Amino acid sequence: MLLGKVKGTVVATQKEPSMVGFKFLVVKPLDEKGAEVSGSVVAVDAVGAGVGEVVLYATGSAARQTVATKDRPCDAVVMAIVDTLEVGGREVYRKGQE
Amino acid sequence: MLLGKVKGTVVATQKEPSMVGFKFLVVKPLDEKGAEVSGSVVAVDAVGAGVGEVVLYATGSAARQTVATKDRPCDAVVMAIVDTLEVGGREVYRKGQE
Amino acid sequence: MLLGKVKGTVVATQKEPSMVGFKFLVVKPLDEKGAEVSGSVVAVDAVGAGVGEVVLYATGSAARQTVATKDRPCDAVVMAIVDTLEVGGREVYRKGQE
Amino acid sequence: MLLGKVKGTVVATQKEPSMVGFKFLVVKPLDEKGAEVSGSVVAVDAVGAGVGEVVLYATGSAARQTVATKDRPCDAVVMAIVDTLEVGGREVYRKGQE
Amino acid sequence: MLLGKVKGTVVATQKEPSMVGFKFLVVKPLDEKGAEVSGSVVAVDAVGAGVGEVVLYATGSAARQTVATKDRPCDAVVMAIVDTLEVGGREVYRKGQE
Repeated sequence: MLLGKVKGTVVATQKEPSMVGFKFLVVKPLDEKGAEVSGSVVAVDAVGAGVGEVVLYATGSAARQTVATKDRPCDAVVMAIVDTLEVGGREVYRKGQE
Repeated sequence: MLLGKVKGTVVATQKEPSMVGFKFLVVKPLDEKGAEVSGSVVAVDAVGAGVGEVVLYATGSAARQTVATKDRPCDAVVMAIVDTLEVGGREVYRKGQE
Repeated sequence: MLLGKVKGTVVATQKEPSMVGFKFLVVKPLDEKGAEVSGSVVAVDAVGAGVGEVVLYATGSAARQTVATKDRPCDAVVMAIVDTLEVGGREVYRKGQE
Repeated sequence: MLLGKVKGTVVATQKEPSMVGFKFLVVKPLDEKGAEVSGSVVAVDAVGAGVGEVVLYATGSAARQTVATKDRPCDAVVMAIVDTLEVGGREVYRKGQE
Repeated sequence: MLLGKVKGTVVATQKEPSMVGFKFLVVKPLDEKGAEVSGSVVAVDAVGAGVGEVVLYATGSAARQTVATKDRPCDAVVMAIVDTLEVGGREVYRKGQE
């Protein structure tokens, strides 16, 4: 999984039928200190994540292992909302205190 | 999934038989602000996307989860046409208004 | 899939038994303008491609979706020979006219 | 697999139900000399690894081939704790002697 | 597949049970001229490769398509030992003559 921050949303009405009903989140990857790094991905939301939240997302075939995304052309899924990130014995992120 | 812009097409008559009939699109990845980034991919079109359109494409095994591409040697598929991209509370792209 | 140019071949007699009989091609990836980019991959040939040809190759599990490569430890396959590449309304490559 | 060093942990209570009970480790990849390289990943712990240990982690669908992670949206797993790393005829790392 | 050179070995006694008995090789990727490039991977040996040999290795789910590695958390496998590498009409590597 990768750490990411939800930055926005994508709306797409014309799409593969099996992808109807999903919320597409624009996610920016974060490094282990919580800082944004280059690149971005559009991930299906499986946990009710909102813009601004720090999340974990899984990519590749793992992204089809949620109840919602099984057998769909989905290669990235937000599967957890991060409460705390502790690195090097120090808490570098706590939800609600950023 | 990744944001991309359809830049062109590839024609290939001599190919794996299971790939006959597909439209191959040259797609340039976009960052979360809609700007082109380095690299490019050739993706099968599953949604009737045309040159110039902003799309979502899936890569890896996810690219075989559309009705058209199942069990074929396809590792990238355009599976949605983007209507709007909203990042940081701002609409950075709307189809037909670029 | 990625655009590539076949640059050479690899011979390997000592190998996983299921890989006997394959032709291993050294492929250099190309960008959307047909220029070589960094990196290279060794792909199994599924279409009779020769050195110097511009091809499409698939990577990952897609590379096992040809009749030849099914269930083998193959992560890259040349699955099409490119006739034409058209980008931005301009033909940037035509087989036999490079 | 990649060499990595466990740098920290992630706590996430709101997540895909199948991921409950896992320990999420922040892992920094190492090069063949044992030096940290750029990037980081969050991997499920399958071997009882602790912060500061040098480990091997597998990514992609391989990360679902442990008893614990089967059929879950997990794309990275720590599946071994490194005792020794020998490169170029020289021992560059031995557990407990770093 | 990628060209690589075996640079060393990793010993790990505490690991996922299904990985017991494998030889872990530290492999440095090579470009199409046989020169080492950045990065390194730890691959399971499926062909009896030794330190110093030039090999082909497969990554991702392909790495589980050898008899030895099936259904195991293995994402990289050395599946061939290279005899010759010919690029641009020139032999750039021959085993035993480097």
